[in-house]
Amino acid sequence: MSEQSSRPFSRRAVITTVAATAGAAAGGALVVNARGDEAPRPSGPERRIEPFHGAHQAGIATPQQRHALFVAFDLEDTDPVSGDRLSSERLAGNFRRLMERWTAVAERLTQGRLPGPMPGAGPQVPPDTGIADGLEPSRLTVTFGLGPDLFERVGRTDARPHRLEPLPAFRGDGLEDAWSGGELLIQICGEDLQVISRAFRALRSRAPGLARLRWTQQGFLGGFGDATPRNLFGHKDGTVNPRPEAFDAVVWADAAEEPAWFSGGTYLVFRKIRMDLPKWDTVTARVQDETIGRRRDNGAPLSGGHEFSTPDFGKKGPDGKPLIPADSHLALVRDVPMLRRSYNYDYGFQPGGAQDDDHEHDDGHDHGDGMPAHDESAHAAFDSGVLFCAYVRDPGEFVRAQNALAGADRLNAFIRHTGSAVFAIPPGAAPGEPVAAKLFPRT
Amino acid sequence: MSEQSSRPFSRRAVITTVAATAGAAAGGALVVNARGDEAPRPSGPERRIEPFHGAHQAGIATPQQRHALFVAFDLEDTDPVSGDRLSSERLAGNFRRLMERWTAVAERLTQGRLPGPMPGAGPQVPPDTGIADGLEPSRLTVTFGLGPDLFERVGRTDARPHRLEPLPAFRGDGLEDAWSGGELLIQICGEDLQVISRAFRALRSRAPGLARLRWTQQGFLGGFGDATPRNLFGHKDGTVNPRPEAFDAVVWADAAEEPAWFSGGTYLVFRKIRMDLPKWDTVTARVQDETIGRRRDNGAPLSGGHEFSTPDFGKKGPDGKPLIPADSHLALVRDVPMLRRSYNYDYGFQPGGAQDDDHEHDDGHDHGDGMPAHDESAHAAFDSGVLFCAYVRDPGEFVRAQNALAGADRLNAFIRHTGSAVFAIPPGAAPGEPVAAKLFPRT
Ligand code: HEM
Ligand code: HEM
Repeated sequence: MSEQSSRPFSRRAVITTVAATAGAAAGGALVVNARGDEAPRPSGPERRIEPFHGAHQAGIATPQQRHALFVAFDLEDTDPVSGDRLSSERLAGNFRRLMERWTAVAERLTQGRLPGPMPGAGPQVPPDTGIADGLEPSRLTVTFGLGPDLFERVGRTDARPHRLEPLPAFRGDGLEDAWSGGELLIQICGEDLQVISRAFRALRSRAPGLARLRWTQQGFLGGFGDATPRNLFGHKDGTVNPRPEAFDAVVWADAAEEPAWFSGGTYLVFRKIRMDLPKWDTVTARVQDETIGRRRDNGAPLSGGHEFSTPDFGKKGPDGKPLIPADSHLALVRDVPMLRRSYNYDYGFQPGGAQDDDHEHDDGHDHGDGMPAHDESAHAAFDSGVLFCAYVRDPGEFVRAQNALAGADRLNAFIRHTGSAVFAIPPGAAPGEPVAAKLFPRT
Repeated sequence: MSEQSSRPFSRRAVITTVAATAGAAAGGALVVNARGDEAPRPSGPERRIEPFHGAHQAGIATPQQRHALFVAFDLEDTDPVSGDRLSSERLAGNFRRLMERWTAVAERLTQGRLPGPMPGAGPQVPPDTGIADGLEPSRLTVTFGLGPDLFERVGRTDARPHRLEPLPAFRGDGLEDAWSGGELLIQICGEDLQVISRAFRALRSRAPGLARLRWTQQGFLGGFGDATPRNLFGHKDGTVNPRPEAFDAVVWADAAEEPAWFSGGTYLVFRKIRMDLPKWDTVTARVQDETIGRRRDNGAPLSGGHEFSTPDFGKKGPDGKPLIPADSHLALVRDVPMLRRSYNYDYGFQPGGAQDDDHEHDDGHDHGDGMPAHDESAHAAFDSGVLFCAYVRDPGEFVRAQNALAGADRLNAFIRHTGSAVFAIPPGAAPGEPVAAKLFPRT
């Protein structure tokens, strides 16, 4: 218990946004957002605009929106005409152009403007799809990330954030190429799926010739308001997350140890984790609670109290065993400095469970780690779970936590990690400057 | 023009819902919904409860919610133990049990209650997943449908709605089994994806042994409020839809011609239509507008006026040609008595475009109808478009319209029908009675 009270990153981040009252459209109320910026906000829940510029990119400290789209790209590495592989100089130039285009689009769309001109399109071609005409930005944020391979590609290994490297393999992983890796990431979050769909289209339509799509994943959260959102196991997820005042120590890159350009940046560890819902749904409430170490109904630790009570890992029940089992999820991951900003996903039913049959698994042992065959097939048919997102100042924290979990966590009987990616998230851009501009080749 | 003014089903259905003001939680305001029922509604936009019982099922005349999940099932036709095919008596009994369970769950969840007991589960197993604990029903509706094959399966061909038969093949169809057909449909609509995900799970967990999943599809609409929603081509879609007072003539089954039990029912024609967005996005605004016959920006017919002006198909431009081209979508589908209640879908990027490569096409000519090969591959990689839903008193109206479109519509250069299903939608249930109860075997 003593280690609980000393840690800087405890309790759920309660990030207060002052909703502007309806009718204050003219002018807009001045509110303070999570990053401490002041920004004008028009009236009504759907109108809210998240600032784009700042020391950090939006979409990290931003209170979680209800929808998220994750899009991974790779730089286009062959000349479209000659078929030759592009030199790192060419790739660096393409990377620059891409970030210039993408930043311009992101800045405009998040602020409620049109995406701007479409490079290479004729004058009669509409520069925007129009699908969000009449819709407000609805808290749209666009966050860019750079994968481990990018820096060598563009000839800037000198500038590579020091803690950016591919994640190691973990026991039990069942990763699929179809949604793993990537040289570039765009995380698009917002309250309106059609606004997100439009942003996706505007961004990808500016990529051809420069980068190609690798994968997309879509997540959601229920409208829980100020309460902690629930994951698809029914548990409150995100109770213990750092407070904003701890973000410097937990989330934002270590200025002393990282390249100067990366100051204000962070890392995103992305894991697609499939949940075996048919199996979970048929175990007892007690098994469910002891798997997590908290009560599903109110989120309280099994040692007692309420959702925000400090767990007592030493407290024992009448049988002499700890009330919070030592191999419960909670007991294994306490005190990990990370901001979890995950989304649920539910892709419904996939006839034939194609994703498990048709793709390779990179660890070669996707069967035989404790899940009987019939659960495996249920796993395959229902692709549902969590798009686990950890923003960390050091991906090593994730690696340590996941190594602890992979061997022992009771949760492993109900989940499988099927996707994995890691990105350095550059700092926020100043007005007129593209994201990651300091990485660009001098011209 | 004269045929325009006489039709009973013109102009967008403006179905007024009186939003209860915040703070009126105690008691709830009495509002009149689209079906003329009175229902108490608690306060706040997320709390709104759509009534379950009534002459018609909810989810049809109900003002469109922002999210929809379509789920198709087939009755389980083999004995789980012996492997024998089930008799139609057994199937009829299973159908009855399924509709009893499903109706009970739908009634409870839409009214903000727990789903009730889980048949066959031990007493310690939670009867609900808990994922929507703390969430309001958020206008959840659950609508059941019966496919053409169902009636023979359960030995009730005598009761089959007279206009229920499989749709014919249309020119240009590229249908895939993976999301076509089905003996049973559940349409789940609402404002909160997590509430929908929970309803899906509650319903499917009551099906094993009785029915098995066939396909799911997920759609959305932007938050357009009282304005007509836009489709992914950027056009306002749903401008000309019947007014509620025309539903008797257009939507609800013809009492004189249909079996008595079906009075108050309707038919749903479901088509998954993929849109070639990369192609659409690179044609001129003029081509876009002339393809539809309306202006993308404001929805006005190309003959002039505003969104709700009556199109003048005879009006010609300076070049002597009709301003609304004769092969535009608008010119080909006018005066079709149907209620369109469609949803956009955007499944992002599918690596490898697996859906076009791996599945059969039931018409055998998915290539070569005017779409060049490179568009075809873009089509495959981006699975986005519309889940077209037409509620009609006669599916023949859809068949006539689609035959007119399939041969001539300019839209065909940009779309492909990849999924198809048709269902009879039973009337609404009275309290204490399952949906479709009049079809059950006497016991
Ligand atoms: C499907 C997989 C997972 C599920 C369902 C899950 C669920 C939960 C739940 C219900 C809690 C307790 C409430 C809270 O504080 O948020 C929790 C806490 C936590 N989880 Fe997970 N989790 C999953 C995977 C992971 C992974 C892969 C990691 C990191 C490697 C992780 C790290 C954490 C941490 C650091 C906490 C806070 C513990 C504390 O300090 O009290 N989780 N998780
Ligand atoms: C991706 C495919 C389609 C797109 C993008 C599309 C789009 C549109 C648009 C923009 C309008 C004008 C605004 C409105 O009244 O809603 C419209 C009208 C209409 N569409 Fe479609 N549509 C599609 C497929 C179909 C199909 C398959 C049918 C039926 C077979 C159909 C039937 C109608 C009807 C009946 C109208 C109203 C026409 C009138 O009376 O003015 N549409 N559609």
